[in-house]
Amino acid sequence: MKLLNQTLKKIGLLDQETMAKTKNRVDNLFKPLGSLGRLEDLAVQLAGITKNSFPTVDKKVIIVMSADHGVYVEGVAPDPQIITALQTPNFVKGITGVCAFAKQARADVVVVDMGIASDIDEPKVINRKIRYGTSNMAKGPAMSREEAIKSLEIGIEIANDQIDQGKNLLATGEMGIGNTTPSTAIFSVIGHLDPETIVGIGAGLPIEKLKHKASVIKKAIAINQPNPKDAIDILSKVGGFEIGGMAGVFIGAASRRIPIVVDGFIATAAALLAITIAPKVKDFLIPSHHTAERGGKIAMQLLGLTPLFDIGLRLGEGTGAALAFNFVEAATYMVKEMATREEAGLVI
Amino acid sequence: MKLLNQTLKKIGLLDQETMAKTKNRVDNLFKPLGSLGRLEDLAVQLAGITKNSFPTVDKKVIIVMSADHGVYVEGVAPDPQIITALQTPNFVKGITGVCAFAKQARADVVVVDMGIASDIDEPKVINRKIRYGTSNMAKGPAMSREEAIKSLEIGIEIANDQIDQGKNLLATGEMGIGNTTPSTAIFSVIGHLDPETIVGIGAGLPIEKLKHKASVIKKAIAINQPNPKDAIDILSKVGGFEIGGMAGVFIGAASRRIPIVVDGFIATAAALLAITIAPKVKDFLIPSHHTAERGGKIAMQLLGLTPLFDIGLRLGEGTGAALAFNFVEAATYMVKEMATREEAGLVI
Repeated sequence: MKLLNQTLKKIGLLDQETMAKTKNRVDNLFKPLGSLGRLEDLAVQLAGITKNSFPTVDKKVIIVMSADHGVYVEGVAPDPQIITALQTPNFVKGITGVCAFAKQARADVVVVDMGIASDIDEPKVINRKIRYGTSNMAKGPAMSREEAIKSLEIGIEIANDQIDQGKNLLATGEMGIGNTTPSTAIFSVIGHLDPETIVGIGAGLPIEKLKHKASVIKKAIAINQPNPKDAIDILSKVGGFEIGGMAGVFIGAASRRIPIVVDGFIATAAALLAITIAPKVKDFLIPSHHTAERGGKIAMQLLGLTPLFDIGLRLGEGTGAALAFNFVEAATYMVKEMATREEAGLVI
Repeated sequence: MKLLNQTLKKIGLLDQETMAKTKNRVDNLFKPLGSLGRLEDLAVQLAGITKNSFPTVDKKVIIVMSADHGVYVEGVAPDPQIITALQTPNFVKGITGVCAFAKQARADVVVVDMGIASDIDEPKVINRKIRYGTSNMAKGPAMSREEAIKSLEIGIEIANDQIDQGKNLLATGEMGIGNTTPSTAIFSVIGHLDPETIVGIGAGLPIEKLKHKASVIKKAIAINQPNPKDAIDILSKVGGFEIGGMAGVFIGAASRRIPIVVDGFIATAAALLAITIAPKVKDFLIPSHHTAERGGKIAMQLLGLTPLFDIGLRLGEGTGAALAFNFVEAATYMVKEMATREEAGLVI
């Protein structure tokens, strides 16, 4: 709890003075006013986050959090649970979706075992296993309050490690069979929504099982009665270890004034927990894409952010965030590479 | 006319066999079926274009075509016409918007003087000037039919040059004060639309002048009576030298089986001319973004393509295309870097 509290205290506001400087430069670049749309807003936000009127995001990393879910036994996911353990080492080998897009975007990928149901025989997977999967939230809390706090603090530590190594743009990704179920529960609790209105197929659950998935989530919420105002309570009762870890990364990045990109459905749930714990985190978030997962649009509305693109992604892993890194970097190139009217000698 | 005709004859169809191979691989990558959305479609299209089931787009170029417009004198643009001449050398210097985004996307930018109203004292600007600006289309044809064909053939030659130099992903950009006016005329003629329904502010025309801009376009169409089925007639009567050049680049790229990305409003007008001349060109086009220019959505509907993103860009120059290069490249990384279930040892 000490690390979490210390970190929360460090989260500041966007620096208005730096933002004004960058806004002024962007408005004076040789182009019609406002003609680079959201990249202009992004550049100003990055300036406010980093307190640097010429922000740089050349050292990027996607932190992939991996864990299993006790609720899996309720039949909420189409794939065997062992896929979490089998796929996790593949993030180190560079052969998953997020690895492909990270390579294109010149970003690193690091992978953390937050609570996979079996041991991972791959030393490059960072072992921060809290437990061999959460408990079944349809029967009781997914984890204890202490474990929830631990997951947040591991996320903070991993973010700090990466930032200490020089990373200046972060994102989170995840791997965890069944993890759209706790994510949907989180949205339902915070948004006061009936799970049936947002539940989706995740990795490919047959449509006829959606009602069952929603009923499992309803049961988990009814049994555990998470407090919608207490994100740690929500995380412990209907969350997941990787979701807590991701929420911790968001909090950690914000405390260090490092921009962090939000990926799809599960990352949005984690970000929503983070801003419920500390509303100031929101200023440090950059949305990436609208997931094709059914509740994605409502999820982004709860977070209060408008994604940059919508190309039908629903893989997770951080894939959308990796693609969005290019937009974020392009915004910084706009500030640095483009000339103002004066610099271009075009004051006529 | 000889080069144009020869080039048109060379345009083929997408290679179905290669597309099937790549589709099969994409469907067997270790991810939920279809979960990478439009990037999957892009990968298959690229395979069909290049006849390579593992397509590569690592050598990218944006061809910026620059020219002036006789219709400028009618008061359809907010900026001095000399801006075309002053800004064009800045594409060589790397200080314009498209240069910033091209640098981020590791793409080259080449600039062609297709018909700027004055001489350009910068040897790296490729001098293919047809004339010192088009004639005023509100009084008569913007150019002769011969000049229209010449502009298309220059575009083909420039595309061929770039492809001969090893480029495997192309896009067009443009610079030309007033060029949303001929573009809007092209959309109006081909789409049988009243210019008032699609006319926009371009680089920042005051709203109260929109009606005037539309009336100039109406007048140009009424006086010249371009034939909606004859794109060369449209180009000569209400087009522009840079628009013809861009249309030629689209045709040239298609004839060489090289994918080409469509930027915003003016590039869409050029692409529409290209597919009106040769419908098969369409298969080789990759849309990038929805321009914030008012008629942009209708323009894309006329072209029959759905852009990848909409972030409020309305600068032109090829800026949106440069940003889209990253998506196109990511699609190729997906095919090459991601493992299939079998390769990942995940057949369980």
